[in-house]
Amino acid sequence: MIHASFSGRLVMLGFGSIGQGVLPLILRHIAMPRERITIITAEPRGAEVAAEYGIRFVQQAVTRENLRVVLLPELAPGDFLLNLSVDVSSVALIALVQEIGALYLDTCIEPWPGGYTDPTLTPSQRSNYGLRESALALRDGVAGRPTAVLTHGANPGLVSHLVKQALLNLAGTGVAVPAGREGWAALAQQLGVKVIHIAERDTQVASHPKQVGEFVNTWSIDGFVGEGCQPAELGWGTHEKALPPDGHRHAFGCDAAIWLARPGASTRVRSWTPLEGPFHGFLITHNEAISLADYYTVRDAAGAVTYRPTAHYAYHPCDDAVLSVHEIAGKNWHMQPAKRLMMEEITGGTDELGVLLMGHAKGAYWFGSRLSIEQARALAPHNNATSLQVTAAVLAGLVWAMENPRAGIIEADEIDHARCMDIMRPYLGEVVGEFSDWTPLQDREVLFSEALDREDPWQFQNFRVV
Amino acid sequence: MIHASFSGRLVMLGFGSIGQGVLPLILRHIAMPRERITIITAEPRGAEVAAEYGIRFVQQAVTRENLRVVLLPELAPGDFLLNLSVDVSSVALIALVQEIGALYLDTCIEPWPGGYTDPTLTPSQRSNYGLRESALALRDGVAGRPTAVLTHGANPGLVSHLVKQALLNLAGTGVAVPAGREGWAALAQQLGVKVIHIAERDTQVASHPKQVGEFVNTWSIDGFVGEGCQPAELGWGTHEKALPPDGHRHAFGCDAAIWLARPGASTRVRSWTPLEGPFHGFLITHNEAISLADYYTVRDAAGAVTYRPTAHYAYHPCDDAVLSVHEIAGKNWHMQPAKRLMMEEITGGTDELGVLLMGHAKGAYWFGSRLSIEQARALAPHNNATSLQVTAAVLAGLVWAMENPRAGIIEADEIDHARCMDIMRPYLGEVVGEFSDWTPLQDREVLFSEALDREDPWQFQNFRVV
Ligand SMILES: NC(=O)c1ccc[n+]([C@@H]2O[C@H](COP(=O)([O-])OP(=O)(O)OC[C@H]3O[C@@H](n4cnc5c(N)ncnc54)[C@H](O)[C@@H]3O)[C@@H](O)[C@H]2O)c1
Ligand SMILES: NC(=O)c1ccc[n+]([C@@H]2O[C@H](COP(=O)([O-])OP(=O)(O)OC[C@H]3O[C@@H](n4cnc5c(N)ncnc54)[C@H](O)[C@@H]3O)[C@@H](O)[C@H]2O)c1
Repeated sequence: MIHASFSGRLVMLGFGSIGQGVLPLILRHIAMPRERITIITAEPRGAEVAAEYGIRFVQQAVTRENLRVVLLPELAPGDFLLNLSVDVSSVALIALVQEIGALYLDTCIEPWPGGYTDPTLTPSQRSNYGLRESALALRDGVAGRPTAVLTHGANPGLVSHLVKQALLNLAGTGVAVPAGREGWAALAQQLGVKVIHIAERDTQVASHPKQVGEFVNTWSIDGFVGEGCQPAELGWGTHEKALPPDGHRHAFGCDAAIWLARPGASTRVRSWTPLEGPFHGFLITHNEAISLADYYTVRDAAGAVTYRPTAHYAYHPCDDAVLSVHEIAGKNWHMQPAKRLMMEEITGGTDELGVLLMGHAKGAYWFGSRLSIEQARALAPHNNATSLQVTAAVLAGLVWAMENPRAGIIEADEIDHARCMDIMRPYLGEVVGEFSDWTPLQDREVLFSEALDREDPWQFQNFRVV
Repeated sequence: MIHASFSGRLVMLGFGSIGQGVLPLILRHIAMPRERITIITAEPRGAEVAAEYGIRFVQQAVTRENLRVVLLPELAPGDFLLNLSVDVSSVALIALVQEIGALYLDTCIEPWPGGYTDPTLTPSQRSNYGLRESALALRDGVAGRPTAVLTHGANPGLVSHLVKQALLNLAGTGVAVPAGREGWAALAQQLGVKVIHIAERDTQVASHPKQVGEFVNTWSIDGFVGEGCQPAELGWGTHEKALPPDGHRHAFGCDAAIWLARPGASTRVRSWTPLEGPFHGFLITHNEAISLADYYTVRDAAGAVTYRPTAHYAYHPCDDAVLSVHEIAGKNWHMQPAKRLMMEEITGGTDELGVLLMGHAKGAYWFGSRLSIEQARALAPHNNATSLQVTAAVLAGLVWAMENPRAGIIEADEIDHARCMDIMRPYLGEVVGEFSDWTPLQDREVLFSEALDREDPWQFQNFRVV
């Protein structure tokens, strides 16, 4: 089914697992001449996929220095830059396309190379909070600027729409769909949502085991290692009684989130999904942890914050990635010599990706997508279960931007969730909601005493694995 | 080559991976009629291996209640009880064989079922320290009692002999082999050994991946989970400046070790092996952590401790076991529904098991065994690389006990290491020593500040992963 027609040119920057996975969806759902699409990417990787679809493929790494030289000839007003690269500054790209008058979408706010692990930057400067603030700072208040959709993959991206649908499901029939940010935040507050996890369990496994010295994952290894080495970050809710001992506020910006003085890939939290049950996930920093906390903030007339949920990622990547994280941590974050992005060799498994809303009257409610590798392969070529959840969201963001080309710089939370859900749903496998009586206090302190807050199960202290 | 002849009866209690692996070694190296061997075990597991060798196989779980009824008819003075079971109290068995006048060997001091995780016991009572004290308490000072070799597998067991050889290697040519405990402890002190890790990296992998809900390991799953749920324990050296915040001394016994108020399987430490380099291992409690610290204690004339090394396990089990630990921790130590002890399906990998002596003039010295699965299979049937390091040590302990039948209740540290090394060496693959300039301070604090002791790299605080 064609969702949109596009007469401009489309430049895809980066052609890794997400780029290759989204191309067939674009060709299937967006009516545009394929000779108007260009791929610009740093490596030969994916050239055969581009050739399969007859798409122009330019092997050219974009750098600080050549950014304008490479992109200016390819983009005019009304064209589209779809950024699916690593190692290219999203902020630099957005500034450029806003200058050109072109549309834009990315799936995360990337810095220039090394920006995640530059020891001359403070952790706060290396954080996603900092990157998000720098992207939002490009908003100039002028109405009708070209649309630039920030961070619209699965998470960040899809999960913002899942949170809205989950809130509506929790509210039950008869509730009016809120019209804007204040309405949504008020709904979350009314329902008493204290904590939102992006609770993900990826069970995809391959035909051959991870080797010693190999980082294996179901999506970008560079992307995952980059964010895993950033400080752990979380949106910091108003119900939290005390800042963690290693927790810090940022001295600038929206103040919706905190950072912990340690890499997210070494920080574990307790979470829950319907298929997996209780599990330990990594508190990897993600843009949505901050944007959700910011979006669902309620203030009083004086501007003081009266409600905000805690929000963060609780990520159980595929088992080989858990091992890869264990190995790289043992090497003090020196990258393994080899990388393998699992694709054809996957023999089974499901990506169970959803949002877990906790602390309300019904305890915990998970709402999300369960997509098996078999389903993903049947639905679209060049995808695994993880990438398809992302590429479906990229497709939805592209369509929404084409339908709303003058929305300026915009986050997933601010976009019509119903329209996006409609576009994504065919690619999400089973979309399910499940209630649970799980809390992070379940089965605790059987053998050893622990520092727990028994009065409020939903304190971050109780979730954290120490 | 025949190492010993034995005219008594031999009862093997338990016939899992270690029992099945040691049987062919016993038949190869100990001259005894095979009809004098009996296997008593709880399950049918291994019956086909017993049949292959024509060994009597009795399926009978031993319990508190039936212990005497089952074992008294099978054992007379001079016979041998080889305990390779889980869930049978080693202390109860030792008391019984001492009463009978039979010989005994085990590879760890086991409690009755549930003893590792009985919430009505204090962590100190559930510790290996407590179990060791209860076994040593059976020593009655009467000379010439039948030999009962405690904890003589790979670790505990083999590693005590490796420590002695490593000390001699460190001391260099010309050093006299110490005659007894005081001499060995004085040598360790002279050399300035501050910390001893049992540093192990098992890289064995299988043809098919671990499933969700399956605990996979290269040796006893019950054994590993049992010890992993005990408190983390370590021999506590005299160079340590401060007890860890969660560290506790025992209020009884030799006082050579401390316990941490958390399961060992959730406690990670930095360590190093020659093939792996730096890695994170689990600080799983083990008897040798306590016995080594106790054995290598130097006291002044007044009896005050003047030297003792820190000693503990730093275990990187096979990758599937790392995942299994991650999973069971996520379920708050509720055992997975399925267990799989990897054997025939192993496709590659090496067990690199040794002792890492640190803090001396040359920094760090690892000495140990590197045994690949291919080597293990070529050397002995019914073994993998992990089990063969254990079964070789069981064989050596059996031979030593047969040669020294009146040594009473005795630990690996107290046994002639040269004789044992001679018996074990053909089964250990490459036995290698390597120096390293590694310290746990290497590559630390690149991105985040950490609480480190920069003055003394060898403080436990620096090893611990938080
Ligand atoms: N929001 C989400 O849910 C989500 C999910 C997955 C990935 N992502 C993000 O999407 C991006 C792509 O992910 P992926 O899995 O496809 O990554 P990948 O590692 O598979 O591919 C990255 C691509 O970027 C290209 N690239 C690298 N440096 C470049 C440069 N200087 N100029 C041009 N191209 C360059 C590489 O050649 C490669 O084609 C990453 O930033 C990742 O973090 C977001
Ligand atoms: N020191 C070391 O290096 C070392 C290494 C590996 C194993 N071990 C120890 O050796 C022992 C055996 O290890 P494994 O890998 O063979 O274990 P396993 O789990 O493979 O086998 C255990 C055996 O004990 C038997 N058993 C269980 N309950 C019993 C009962 N009540 N009565 C009689 N038999 C019973 C089981 O039927 C099985 O045959 C464990 O205690 C383990 O901790 C020590």
